[in-house]
Amino acid sequence: MDNKHDILELLWAVKAGETTPEDALLELKQKPFEDLGYAKVDFHRSVRQGAAEVIYGAGKTAGQIAGIAAAMGERGCRNILITRMGEEAAQVVAQSVPLDYRSIPRLGIAFPGERTALGHIVVATGGTSDMPVAEEAALTAEVMGNKVTRLYDVGVAGLHRLLSNLEPLMSARCVVAVAGMEGALASVVGGLVDCPVVAVPTSVGYGASFGGLSALLAMLNSCASGCSVVNIDNGFGAGYLASMINQMEGLQ
Amino acid sequence: MDNKHDILELLWAVKAGETTPEDALLELKQKPFEDLGYAKVDFHRSVRQGAAEVIYGAGKTAGQIAGIAAAMGERGCRNILITRMGEEAAQVVAQSVPLDYRSIPRLGIAFPGERTALGHIVVATGGTSDMPVAEEAALTAEVMGNKVTRLYDVGVAGLHRLLSNLEPLMSARCVVAVAGMEGALASVVGGLVDCPVVAVPTSVGYGASFGGLSALLAMLNSCASGCSVVNIDNGFGAGYLASMINQMEGLQ
Amino acid sequence: MDNKHDILELLWAVKAGETTPEDALLELKQKPFEDLGYAKVDFHRSVRQGAAEVIYGAGKTAGQIAGIAAAMGERGCRNILITRMGEEAAQVVAQSVPLDYRSIPRLGIAFPGERTALGHIVVATGGTSDMPVAEEAALTAEVMGNKVTRLYDVGVAGLHRLLSNLEPLMSARCVVAVAGMEGALASVVGGLVDCPVVAVPTSVGYGASFGGLSALLAMLNSCASGCSVVNIDNGFGAGYLASMINQMEGLQ
Amino acid sequence: MDNKHDILELLWAVKAGETTPEDALLELKQKPFEDLGYAKVDFHRSVRQGAAEVIYGAGKTAGQIAGIAAAMGERGCRNILITRMGEEAAQVVAQSVPLDYRSIPRLGIAFPGERTALGHIVVATGGTSDMPVAEEAALTAEVMGNKVTRLYDVGVAGLHRLLSNLEPLMSARCVVAVAGMEGALASVVGGLVDCPVVAVPTSVGYGASFGGLSALLAMLNSCASGCSVVNIDNGFGAGYLASMINQMEGLQ
Amino acid sequence: MDNKHDILELLWAVKAGETTPEDALLELKQKPFEDLGYAKVDFHRSVRQGAAEVIYGAGKTAGQIAGIAAAMGERGCRNILITRMGEEAAQVVAQSVPLDYRSIPRLGIAFPGERTALGHIVVATGGTSDMPVAEEAALTAEVMGNKVTRLYDVGVAGLHRLLSNLEPLMSARCVVAVAGMEGALASVVGGLVDCPVVAVPTSVGYGASFGGLSALLAMLNSCASGCSVVNIDNGFGAGYLASMINQMEGLQ
Amino acid sequence: MDNKHDILELLWAVKAGETTPEDALLELKQKPFEDLGYAKVDFHRSVRQGAAEVIYGAGKTAGQIAGIAAAMGERGCRNILITRMGEEAAQVVAQSVPLDYRSIPRLGIAFPGERTALGHIVVATGGTSDMPVAEEAALTAEVMGNKVTRLYDVGVAGLHRLLSNLEPLMSARCVVAVAGMEGALASVVGGLVDCPVVAVPTSVGYGASFGGLSALLAMLNSCASGCSVVNIDNGFGAGYLASMINQMEGLQ
Amino acid sequence: MDNKHDILELLWAVKAGETTPEDALLELKQKPFEDLGYAKVDFHRSVRQGAAEVIYGAGKTAGQIAGIAAAMGERGCRNILITRMGEEAAQVVAQSVPLDYRSIPRLGIAFPGERTALGHIVVATGGTSDMPVAEEAALTAEVMGNKVTRLYDVGVAGLHRLLSNLEPLMSARCVVAVAGMEGALASVVGGLVDCPVVAVPTSVGYGASFGGLSALLAMLNSCASGCSVVNIDNGFGAGYLASMINQMEGLQ
Amino acid sequence: MDNKHDILELLWAVKAGETTPEDALLELKQKPFEDLGYAKVDFHRSVRQGAAEVIYGAGKTAGQIAGIAAAMGERGCRNILITRMGEEAAQVVAQSVPLDYRSIPRLGIAFPGERTALGHIVVATGGTSDMPVAEEAALTAEVMGNKVTRLYDVGVAGLHRLLSNLEPLMSARCVVAVAGMEGALASVVGGLVDCPVVAVPTSVGYGASFGGLSALLAMLNSCASGCSVVNIDNGFGAGYLASMINQMEGLQ
Repeated sequence: MDNKHDILELLWAVKAGETTPEDALLELKQKPFEDLGYAKVDFHRSVRQGAAEVIYGAGKTAGQIAGIAAAMGERGCRNILITRMGEEAAQVVAQSVPLDYRSIPRLGIAFPGERTALGHIVVATGGTSDMPVAEEAALTAEVMGNKVTRLYDVGVAGLHRLLSNLEPLMSARCVVAVAGMEGALASVVGGLVDCPVVAVPTSVGYGASFGGLSALLAMLNSCASGCSVVNIDNGFGAGYLASMINQMEGLQ
Repeated sequence: MDNKHDILELLWAVKAGETTPEDALLELKQKPFEDLGYAKVDFHRSVRQGAAEVIYGAGKTAGQIAGIAAAMGERGCRNILITRMGEEAAQVVAQSVPLDYRSIPRLGIAFPGERTALGHIVVATGGTSDMPVAEEAALTAEVMGNKVTRLYDVGVAGLHRLLSNLEPLMSARCVVAVAGMEGALASVVGGLVDCPVVAVPTSVGYGASFGGLSALLAMLNSCASGCSVVNIDNGFGAGYLASMINQMEGLQ
Repeated sequence: MDNKHDILELLWAVKAGETTPEDALLELKQKPFEDLGYAKVDFHRSVRQGAAEVIYGAGKTAGQIAGIAAAMGERGCRNILITRMGEEAAQVVAQSVPLDYRSIPRLGIAFPGERTALGHIVVATGGTSDMPVAEEAALTAEVMGNKVTRLYDVGVAGLHRLLSNLEPLMSARCVVAVAGMEGALASVVGGLVDCPVVAVPTSVGYGASFGGLSALLAMLNSCASGCSVVNIDNGFGAGYLASMINQMEGLQ
Repeated sequence: MDNKHDILELLWAVKAGETTPEDALLELKQKPFEDLGYAKVDFHRSVRQGAAEVIYGAGKTAGQIAGIAAAMGERGCRNILITRMGEEAAQVVAQSVPLDYRSIPRLGIAFPGERTALGHIVVATGGTSDMPVAEEAALTAEVMGNKVTRLYDVGVAGLHRLLSNLEPLMSARCVVAVAGMEGALASVVGGLVDCPVVAVPTSVGYGASFGGLSALLAMLNSCASGCSVVNIDNGFGAGYLASMINQMEGLQ
Repeated sequence: MDNKHDILELLWAVKAGETTPEDALLELKQKPFEDLGYAKVDFHRSVRQGAAEVIYGAGKTAGQIAGIAAAMGERGCRNILITRMGEEAAQVVAQSVPLDYRSIPRLGIAFPGERTALGHIVVATGGTSDMPVAEEAALTAEVMGNKVTRLYDVGVAGLHRLLSNLEPLMSARCVVAVAGMEGALASVVGGLVDCPVVAVPTSVGYGASFGGLSALLAMLNSCASGCSVVNIDNGFGAGYLASMINQMEGLQ
Repeated sequence: MDNKHDILELLWAVKAGETTPEDALLELKQKPFEDLGYAKVDFHRSVRQGAAEVIYGAGKTAGQIAGIAAAMGERGCRNILITRMGEEAAQVVAQSVPLDYRSIPRLGIAFPGERTALGHIVVATGGTSDMPVAEEAALTAEVMGNKVTRLYDVGVAGLHRLLSNLEPLMSARCVVAVAGMEGALASVVGGLVDCPVVAVPTSVGYGASFGGLSALLAMLNSCASGCSVVNIDNGFGAGYLASMINQMEGLQ
Repeated sequence: MDNKHDILELLWAVKAGETTPEDALLELKQKPFEDLGYAKVDFHRSVRQGAAEVIYGAGKTAGQIAGIAAAMGERGCRNILITRMGEEAAQVVAQSVPLDYRSIPRLGIAFPGERTALGHIVVATGGTSDMPVAEEAALTAEVMGNKVTRLYDVGVAGLHRLLSNLEPLMSARCVVAVAGMEGALASVVGGLVDCPVVAVPTSVGYGASFGGLSALLAMLNSCASGCSVVNIDNGFGAGYLASMINQMEGLQ
Repeated sequence: MDNKHDILELLWAVKAGETTPEDALLELKQKPFEDLGYAKVDFHRSVRQGAAEVIYGAGKTAGQIAGIAAAMGERGCRNILITRMGEEAAQVVAQSVPLDYRSIPRLGIAFPGERTALGHIVVATGGTSDMPVAEEAALTAEVMGNKVTRLYDVGVAGLHRLLSNLEPLMSARCVVAVAGMEGALASVVGGLVDCPVVAVPTSVGYGASFGGLSALLAMLNSCASGCSVVNIDNGFGAGYLASMINQMEGLQ
């Protein structure tokens, strides 16, 4: 029921007598996902949203993760991202589905397959400690078929480190700016480049960083145009959005 | 100093003896803006960032706004946005520069000129009260040359109003979702469309909406992929970013 | 599209050739509301949700309110609640639609008509200053056809005032507990009665009441079973819910 | 002293000389509970509030829990809920009282007995991770004699999963909407159904979900009428209230 | 019903046939206050709590205040405090009841009468701007019959001003420490004296004082023993409590 | 330098030639405490403030605690309270100083000695889980020579449990009200008794209790006169203040 | 009593019989300030702290300000700063004391006199709207005898404007960085210069700037070494501290 | 690119033909740091900012720390501070670089070398528990060549302990005031001394100290002039800034 073309097509089938109204209603209700009991797995999303499939690992058991991934794999999904999955869960999952696991961003890629490297996304961080979030963003973007350049540890307190890396920034179609503490990286990058900047506050810091709140507020208040913000530590969301933007088709 | 090509060009001019090192240094320091005392007006930004010029009106006197706009106009800027400018200030400004003023979003367009209507951006709101912010977004996008469809008062508490407007949503290259109170519009829209969604929390509401904090947090936590968030009531920022995304060139 | 019976009926009409698929799709999209431009007025809601119509007055001009009310009145709606409408707006609205306006809760009843007084709802307040919110709740419930008893100024700091009014409390089918400051009224009432208690925190207070936050948190933490909470100062929401509960049909 | 009928009855007994004033006062003070030292166990509550008995397990030792449950059981209580009790405590308690323990919601049912399945309550969740809270609500409602339908993982980011389950929603007498992160489920459900909706924010999420605060604020700001909110993760409270509402007697 | 002696007395009257059980129940319910409709005026409180009567003026109309004060005056109450009453309301009230009004603390004393000046309370402030709150505390204490010494503008940033006033501090039976901004006065005074210190945070300050929150938190965290805190700007509460403490009877 | 009598006495000694000005200055600086390096132990405090000695155990090593206690014991201090000391630290401390350790409130009494039981303090709690804080308050008061009555688990959701215990409340000279969650106990008790009430919010609860913030705000906003508040979980501070108030001498 | 040399001198005077102990005590208590009733004016502070005198104007009447300024002027104070004084109050004050008033920072200089222009302080702002706070800082520093360079509107979103002004930054002995919104200016400046940076968050901004909280948190989290922060909008405090640092004497 | 002299020099070299424009651009970009992959190590900072090198240990592996320290050591850096490094990491690091590790402040000094003890800095704490942060500040200052006096446990609740230590305070060129809980130490010290005070809030405390927020707010609101604040627990930042101030050269 999420797409007017589907509804129209179904109505025509009813009109043509190819399907009864009751069956049509049933179809409207049953088609778009498989119900595993603990989860309703959505196979049409890649079609409907043009997106790679993703399983949010936190709060799910290894068994549930493996079950969902297997169901997706059976339907032909490849390069399925599993975020926020601990090392132990990954070992369990790897026993039943092919898995490429990265421990720093705690990210798995189930049923890994071939991928392209389109366009150009830069993922930049303020410091070394922001790497786990940045890697989640970078790998998400790579899995979704984008070319990614990593610029780590280019925080604004040593401005020359950032200015010395203008070249990749200037050629990017989208920049993901990952920073904790005062989160100024997004503003400075946003003032330098002429493409969209996706800012990711991280929970890196102590004291008045309040678990990433300080960076989040700073990024939301950025005076630079073209910036927008995702949730604290949400590397996946930033990588996903950057991919969407990078892969925009041109205007006719 | 913000662009490696500029630096390189200048270095070549020095090498060629066309300019002295001292003059080059001077140029590096003086070129990119005009200093009005109370403001450093940046004329290269439209080149550097590909952006329409904008003057943030809040906290500036009518005289300061008029002065900045006039200086920009002299350099050939057209369609200069002036945000958060009250009716009285607008009357003063209109005495010295040509001004198209809209009272609902408190937005002026100085030196209004011709513009295109490229691509397709949808600006949707949860309720009637979100209109001032939505209009700031829509006008910003229009001034920057984009085609905009307005879908106002389609909040999720009456889901059929949103579902009845799937057509424009499905053809949009970017959606700006403007909502106060519980801010659920962004999540629902984000789950329906396959283009980037820029969420704008508004300060509309009372009690536990805490001046837009409730909508802001909800939008940051949206489970829908492809969403990002700008500051509370920041219609300009959302319209600007939506324009950037809408006008992306295609991958080669 | 909000009701499976509607969809089924429409599908049968398509099947029967009484309507074309294109028209059916159109109907699905256009039927449930009238678009006034600034608002999408929902006439089916009273059917769909069994509710009195309500117009949230804050952030709307007097003209917009009058326009929406008139459109509803034309369709036959009666006893239309208009909340958070100032005295001046009320005078404007009253020029074009019949209006019963109450200044303490800043509430109007457009097209006032006959109503019943079913069951029994108690609206209690901690202090005199909570009256505007309490009256919004009480009038909402009365307009929706319920019998309401008001117990004002029975805050827990003078427990005997509450205990002296056990009789109406004991016979209520639902109690609305309205209190600012420390919000203890909800807990104490919740411990005394055996019917649902709808707690409404108010912004009454000063200092560490933080605009109703203190009462809100206290009510959410109430150890009494059967309590739930609505937004700060949301008298309408509480009266509406109390009416729903009071008018529940019995189990077969 | 909590019930005027009790007082009146006692006064008549005094008048009739059946009891002395001193004894009456004593009775007023001693009757309604048993004092275990660490807890004052309330046996009249099931009468006074028509409620199943409940023991809040957090912050109590296994010994204290077992002691309270045993005292209740001796007085004839059945189906006693014990919430927030860890696996280890449950094993200790099970040694002295009959116990049906569920590990996902960390809930025990002491002295389990027969129960009815009246009316119809739907418990819906936004995601798989909200299950522990949802199960606490569902089991509470079931233990209190209600028929419960579970709709898990129907969050608004995949709206079709919710819309495909309209049937049970439409026949419910009360819906418990359980969601973390942006908490939009309550608003969307509240806009679809015409029965009371009890919203339960959960602490599921990360970053700017701030332990459930984001979902809590969103639910409090819900524009849908008929919604009210309980404390974060308070599945018991929601199930209890839903049971109260579901089992309302009809108006005469 | 608030006092066991009252209940016992009433029970004896029932037993003696001097009153019927029905009348006794009625008396239990009607005695302790007069119901003005908008307020339930409590005349027994001065007996029950040994307190001067007080009317909280904020959120009440001048007419309501005058009505409550007149009802109290008729019953013989004297020195009735009216807090948070603006100048205009005071003029209205003064037309119907004798009133001694102080504009700095916005405090009225209705039916002013003779009073004692027992014991010794010190009211100290950090700065000149804290005077309105301090005067509310000092006048409350004076009206309740206490001797009060004012030590204003003795904030800790000029420690010698405080140390030069040790004499009254050392002889006080209770100190009220009133301070905004960083609220350090309470800690320093608490470390100097050996009597209870009642700390009153004020909303004086700007920026990160957040309306008194900063002073409130500092006072709650005071390392000095014997300190306790009342609400921000609650001069009345502090004066009332200081009077209670100052007038404690000695141990037998 | 903390007492004007000391200064005057010293000045006279200088005048009399009994001490030189330099020695006087030295004395002013060195007398009031012993410097252990990691702590400056204050032996005059019991004289200056009339207080039992106390060692705040959190953040100190067992060795540091033992060292401070031993130094105090050598000077003749008895009944030294050690708060927030874990079981392990207690075992270490007990090896070098006589120690009476209570595990529930995590409180030690070093060099325990005889004590009186003057006056009457009631310590009441809302629930069983508030016991650790309540015991810290009760033991502090007992160690300081006061008679204490414990009323545990008398929270307002079962009001009859509180009303059945009016007798000790009515005879108390000071009540310590300990409660988490919605903290309503303080308001209700404050409205019943005519002596000072010291409210102690506890961190007991979950969700929107936010670690005791909810109870803290509720208690600060209490409408009952005579209430004041100490820090969250600060049983020691409440017991200390209650003792001060209970042991007030009568007015001459 | 604030200075050991004063105490020592006084003790010698007592010893020499030049003053009696009673008089000495009196002097210790009365000397350092004049008591105007509403304020204790401190004349020794300029000696004790080496500071210009300052009167915090907010919360004081024009009459009180004039009274304090006059008292200071009589004792020979010159260049007395009066902060946060409105235009109207300034006109009143100017009638009785010589006053140099600046309306943008709402700052008055009473008894203006000659001053030096030592060293070099830079005051930089992120935007034009930060000027009121920046001018308060700059004028404070100038009144205290420092040379000040203003660099306004050099926010990080247009980095070239800042980089084009490196010269004054590099020669400064202290930089005051004034910025609202995301407050990134302090971090970037802190990473460029090798002198202390005093960061002043301003309340400039909207939405998630939360009255300066966002800039405050960002500045506190600055990764640049040598930065420290004063209260939101506290231009005076920053100018005062910058003056202290600029005028440090060299090490011997 | 951070220093105009460097740019000028480079431009002259280009002019002289000693370097090509391309090489110059390269140099501008590559010179100031070494890229280790996970970190960009900045060797010019000691020159550019006159600072000791520092490695922020939190969020880095022992291997990363050792790698950075080794790279610095090779370039001749000495006395490299490593902050927030646990005992285990220190043992690993010590295997490859010479390391002086202090466990209380969790601070390492790599390649320890000779140092001076210039000027005079006082580091004061409110209590014993603030020592870890204070030691981080004191050691940082000592490593940077300053003389440091420690005044621990001089909190304002026992004011005489502070007043007895006026001598070192009066001779300090800069004071670092370290305190948790109510943070009043900074205000009191700021009112006593005439040199800059760097306030460090600590996370010491419980309940309403909210992890140092209470002390932070109090310090930001300090009424004492000359105070500024660094992040909660940021001993390093305070020691670094104090060193900068202490080592200021005198004005010519």
